[in-house]
Amino acid sequence: MRVVRTIADLRALLRPLRDEGKRIGFVPTMGFLHEGHGALIRQSAARCDATVVSIFVNPTQFGPGEDLTSYPRDLERDQNLCLEADTTVLFLPEVAEIYPTGFQTHVEPGRLAEPLCGRFRPGHFRGVATVVAKLFNIVQPDLAFFGQKDFQQTVVIRRMARDLNLPVDVVVVPTIREADGLALSSRNTYLDEDARRRALGLSQGLLAAKAAFDAGERQVTKLMDLARGPLSGVDSIQYLELVDVQALEPLQGLVDRAAVLCVAAFVGGTRLIDNVVLAPSPVDAGLNTSLSPQSV
Amino acid sequence: MRVVRTIADLRALLRPLRDEGKRIGFVPTMGFLHEGHGALIRQSAARCDATVVSIFVNPTQFGPGEDLTSYPRDLERDQNLCLEADTTVLFLPEVAEIYPTGFQTHVEPGRLAEPLCGRFRPGHFRGVATVVAKLFNIVQPDLAFFGQKDFQQTVVIRRMARDLNLPVDVVVVPTIREADGLALSSRNTYLDEDARRRALGLSQGLLAAKAAFDAGERQVTKLMDLARGPLSGVDSIQYLELVDVQALEPLQGLVDRAAVLCVAAFVGGTRLIDNVVLAPSPVDAGLNTSLSPQSV
Repeated sequence: MRVVRTIADLRALLRPLRDEGKRIGFVPTMGFLHEGHGALIRQSAARCDATVVSIFVNPTQFGPGEDLTSYPRDLERDQNLCLEADTTVLFLPEVAEIYPTGFQTHVEPGRLAEPLCGRFRPGHFRGVATVVAKLFNIVQPDLAFFGQKDFQQTVVIRRMARDLNLPVDVVVVPTIREADGLALSSRNTYLDEDARRRALGLSQGLLAAKAAFDAGERQVTKLMDLARGPLSGVDSIQYLELVDVQALEPLQGLVDRAAVLCVAAFVGGTRLIDNVVLAPSPVDAGLNTSLSPQSV
Repeated sequence: MRVVRTIADLRALLRPLRDEGKRIGFVPTMGFLHEGHGALIRQSAARCDATVVSIFVNPTQFGPGEDLTSYPRDLERDQNLCLEADTTVLFLPEVAEIYPTGFQTHVEPGRLAEPLCGRFRPGHFRGVATVVAKLFNIVQPDLAFFGQKDFQQTVVIRRMARDLNLPVDVVVVPTIREADGLALSSRNTYLDEDARRRALGLSQGLLAAKAAFDAGERQVTKLMDLARGPLSGVDSIQYLELVDVQALEPLQGLVDRAAVLCVAAFVGGTRLIDNVVLAPSPVDAGLNTSLSPQSV
């Protein structure tokens, strides 16, 4: 595994691989890696000839009062995880390498960035879309891997890549969970024992709704009630919404197309998100369907 | 010369060229080509192994009340000019090919898009930056050629390419003028005989100021007065500004760094722009200096 810190070094390293026709996979991360990231990297390693992992805590996707300065970091552990998951190149740029003096251009996503997290984190997806567009242009991967846990992010990025004709396939990898159901997240490290226990309400509710859906329940209100029940232990629910997977628009009445049940809640001062896809079949969920470069 | 209308066909045509290591040049245009475009294409043909010219009247860079629907078109003449100037591929996408249903992502340039034309054409440079980013990603050129006549556009695009890490060198080619000084523009076709005569005031003023600058004049007010004099025949001056070539900020007192004198004016209902660079040497003007992929 090679570790590089500059765009020039990364490009110099990747150019010969690309010239040889190697398929390049890319996993952009903010570090403090867990097995969710591990799954992304391993899937990239399995499907590509070379895998680039970036660790960059992107300041522009944090809002005022969010946890930019306290965001957890453990580079040594991250490097070990990357190595074990078969990473080819680890890219560790400084902030000034990504946003040099004079930087002023942004990628502005559209209405897909407005609902759900977009309502509570103004500017977040603009920051995400901008840094991912930049990283896509720096790495020029064939495939890029994102976790389903940040569902709206995957939808915004896939739309951004398609709209800007970035010749990269966006692959969404299912969320990895602890044995008790808690979705893996770098921010779980903020949770003390009590908050960790109460945080379980997110996945418990979602998984109960999914079980009911899989057993045939299609009523939006009933599925929402099932998801809301176990959330009684959280400090506050930011949103709980059942939206269609394409447009992220709330479903009314019955779940008549592929949908995703999304939650954001605060537990012990920590903001957590989670989601489950409710779809008659995985194909309907639109997961792991990638845009071929020809079609974008 | 091959003519293609879809992104997929264009990519299929360019892929083998790129795989062979051919250097690809790109000239994005809105058609109704003139010798200014001819100079861009010829420079690309001279410096690259293959030259792609696009003709696309981009609706998103026109404001309400601007001349989108009346923008002049003459595809047959355009094709002949492209052929004569040694174009390899002519790309003629329909609007739906560039902006399919669901399109919603934009590239938002920063403060360089605010002064000059930006003040009078809100959203114009956002439209330009978005379509050029898309076209850069579609064509993936090594070099892209733009005319100096749209000076602010070249600055915004160069900044956009650098900020989004697009691996393309932006080359600016000097403005081509009629024998009497009028800068070539597709919009000159709107001018009747009287307007054509009065439109000469733009270049006459700019070239008078440049002659004085080259003879040693450095006072901003004197240079501006020289440029303003011949403008008495236009219907209205939108702006006349002497700004530095990097930040596009107005110069005060003396011209102490590379500057550009820019004018926009209406003549007989037609909006025309022009500019001259005032720089101790061409190097200072920042023209034809391109960003190497390594540095962006």
